[in-house]
Amino acid sequence: MTPPTPVQVEDGDLALFTDLYQLSMTQAYWKEAMHERATFSLFFRKLPPTRRFMLACGQQHAAELATRLRFTDAQLASLAGTGRFEPAFLDWLREWRFEGDIWTLAEGTPVFANEPLLEVEAPIAQAQLLESLILNLVQLETVLASKAVRLVMAARGRPVVDFGMRRMHGVDAAVRGVRAYRVAGLAGTSNVLGGLRHDLPLSGTMAHSYILAHDDEREAFRAFARHYPGTTLLVDTHDTLEGVRKVIELLNETPGVDVKAIRLDSGNLDELARGARALLDEAGHGEVRIVASSGLDEWQIDTLIDAGAPIDVFGVGTEMGASTDAPVIDLSYKLVEYAGTPRVKHSPGKINLPCRKQLYRRLGDDGRYAGDVIAMRDEPDIPGVPLLRPLVIGGRVAPREMALAEGARERVRDALEALPVPLRQLAPGEADYPVTLSPGLEALRRRL
Amino acid sequence: MTPPTPVQVEDGDLALFTDLYQLSMTQAYWKEAMHERATFSLFFRKLPPTRRFMLACGQQHAAELATRLRFTDAQLASLAGTGRFEPAFLDWLREWRFEGDIWTLAEGTPVFANEPLLEVEAPIAQAQLLESLILNLVQLETVLASKAVRLVMAARGRPVVDFGMRRMHGVDAAVRGVRAYRVAGLAGTSNVLGGLRHDLPLSGTMAHSYILAHDDEREAFRAFARHYPGTTLLVDTHDTLEGVRKVIELLNETPGVDVKAIRLDSGNLDELARGARALLDEAGHGEVRIVASSGLDEWQIDTLIDAGAPIDVFGVGTEMGASTDAPVIDLSYKLVEYAGTPRVKHSPGKINLPCRKQLYRRLGDDGRYAGDVIAMRDEPDIPGVPLLRPLVIGGRVAPREMALAEGARERVRDALEALPVPLRQLAPGEADYPVTLSPGLEALRRRL
Repeated sequence: MTPPTPVQVEDGDLALFTDLYQLSMTQAYWKEAMHERATFSLFFRKLPPTRRFMLACGQQHAAELATRLRFTDAQLASLAGTGRFEPAFLDWLREWRFEGDIWTLAEGTPVFANEPLLEVEAPIAQAQLLESLILNLVQLETVLASKAVRLVMAARGRPVVDFGMRRMHGVDAAVRGVRAYRVAGLAGTSNVLGGLRHDLPLSGTMAHSYILAHDDEREAFRAFARHYPGTTLLVDTHDTLEGVRKVIELLNETPGVDVKAIRLDSGNLDELARGARALLDEAGHGEVRIVASSGLDEWQIDTLIDAGAPIDVFGVGTEMGASTDAPVIDLSYKLVEYAGTPRVKHSPGKINLPCRKQLYRRLGDDGRYAGDVIAMRDEPDIPGVPLLRPLVIGGRVAPREMALAEGARERVRDALEALPVPLRQLAPGEADYPVTLSPGLEALRRRL
Repeated sequence: MTPPTPVQVEDGDLALFTDLYQLSMTQAYWKEAMHERATFSLFFRKLPPTRRFMLACGQQHAAELATRLRFTDAQLASLAGTGRFEPAFLDWLREWRFEGDIWTLAEGTPVFANEPLLEVEAPIAQAQLLESLILNLVQLETVLASKAVRLVMAARGRPVVDFGMRRMHGVDAAVRGVRAYRVAGLAGTSNVLGGLRHDLPLSGTMAHSYILAHDDEREAFRAFARHYPGTTLLVDTHDTLEGVRKVIELLNETPGVDVKAIRLDSGNLDELARGARALLDEAGHGEVRIVASSGLDEWQIDTLIDAGAPIDVFGVGTEMGASTDAPVIDLSYKLVEYAGTPRVKHSPGKINLPCRKQLYRRLGDDGRYAGDVIAMRDEPDIPGVPLLRPLVIGGRVAPREMALAEGARERVRDALEALPVPLRQLAPGEADYPVTLSPGLEALRRRL
């Protein structure tokens, strides 16, 4: 029997994780001896209609990975098998390394339409080959972090936990998703591999199957609480408030038993949380907290908190993991400069900004973001803080810059404070955040 | 410097790709010496509102993988580090193997609400541990195959090609997505790794960056056509019909040049396709085909074909890759039997079907699907073809059954013929396909 096809993609496979045309164009550049430096800029043209900002996430991850891409002999043999590539080109690919520069926003930076998240500057055959990989990697983490931060905002300080791995699009989405969730400020995840790899606390209770495998719910609670002191018990398998009463019995009758929380996973969460809270408080168990899950999104959390539902922790799965209101952003990776000349595609009704750029953010007197300016990279006298920084120089990661990714969670927390108030609302609205072009960029754009 | 964290998840990492509670419950079963056999059933409760059927996909893939799951020493050390697991349990996990049975539908089977896609029967500590992995793997391929088949239906025989890797949720989604697309009947993919691994022809043209990197569009066309005889040229970088005229000039002026197609990627595709077709035909180049892309979905393809747009090939990305109308299905993996006793959760307003099952599909006199019956596994005298088959027996994959996955593409093609006509419409509608419970299952359900 042949060995089974691997199901997952390893880091070493990623050189072939590209659209065919990237390889075709790269071979064409090679044949035409087009080795001049090119700059590609990563941006999105508009915010999803349900959003007021996005959190840029994944761009440092992607840039670091770009420096590690290599073509193996096995991969080159696969490419040879397609009949599309010349042996001399495949030999050249064997030596291919990314030796250019990558400037990025710090992970967790709030970002708006047309702003550069990342710019790659390298010989064109190096910069072109990164396109598909960068788009895929950055879109995933940006989509997920941008959704998760809405849950965090809606919960107003109460912990939000990721229960979504089963509803996410594949393994990579679920595992790298935890990285994005960490940046966005989630308190924990049920995803063991994701949590261990990306340093987010693990969280989990029990499933209905555990209750059902026992002949009696009471017995199941007793056994689980004995195994896991300080655990959370799932009370809705048969009847939620009956389940709560059984937890109270267990607490009252068994000395030393320690139940930290109960979990509601169905029904009217506001009503059931109040009922459960009342039963627990009457029984003198004010210390037992209430975890709620069951199809929650940011709007439901907002409504539950407005209504005063006594829920202490929110578990969120499907809506966050699939980001159903905005599952994609139209990220573009566009050639903006080649051989020292600005380049731009003419698209009716679309803004395409030529040349290497820098993004400046101004703070108002109140310490809040007052507006952004998109400028030419080296344009002088632009007010504000320059946000694009050189993460990769000459194919090498600058360790100090990479370390900045570590602070992404704190950066997002601070950014949420610094966002103008209208931008922190869940409801969509007119883009009220000023993003302008610098005089130099505006003049260049008009000239082209 | 510490080595970089891997970005991707390898097959060998998948034992930890699970919700924490699966491991907590497994340890609890182990401590309670609950080693009886359990059956878990995989199904969804309702079709997405925009759909009339789903294509079950990924369940054979997932079952095969289950037989290969192992816990490595490094993984066990990580689990030990969480402080949640006893050393003796971790020793037991080191020897953990899936030794049970898995019955599945064949890949590519049309499936309806409440029907079992897969059933796992094993000692409960084996069957429970597969839940999160199976849900994640099967959901992805089922969501993507079910969306892709709509594109194939809309295109009515014209080829549909996957251009979506950059908009999909991560690397695993994009690569395993190609497997689902192959099953659904797509003609090709731009995704090199996905296409090579899952045997779908590679497809690709050029990007706007290639045109822009040249000083002149004409020059770029000439160079690319010389490198790639029979290629497709992207004509919309500056002005689409001007681009077509340049392709015609190239064809007329350069003996031996061979351009198979042009690609339109923006604007009014119907109008531009007619304009391009007219120009090409007038110039005697009726052999040059027209590929269209640019935010297409099944509805737009349907409209373009209805309107008579002379488009020969459709390239589809975002809408298919993110399945924006139905990005998730609410797959459940529920305990239905333990220690020989049927189990069922009481959920107001939900149907939960106890016990091991079989799914039967009846064909009408016209050769079309006439209705399904969900029955107890060994219930006699149920009319129709039994669709669940034993893929894994005693922890071993039955090679003959696994080989059936190879025929999935042909099976889907046949299934589309056999679907009742209303189910083949793109528009949502009342579920008009009869799915009933067998007398035995109905009686058991009432009794519980």
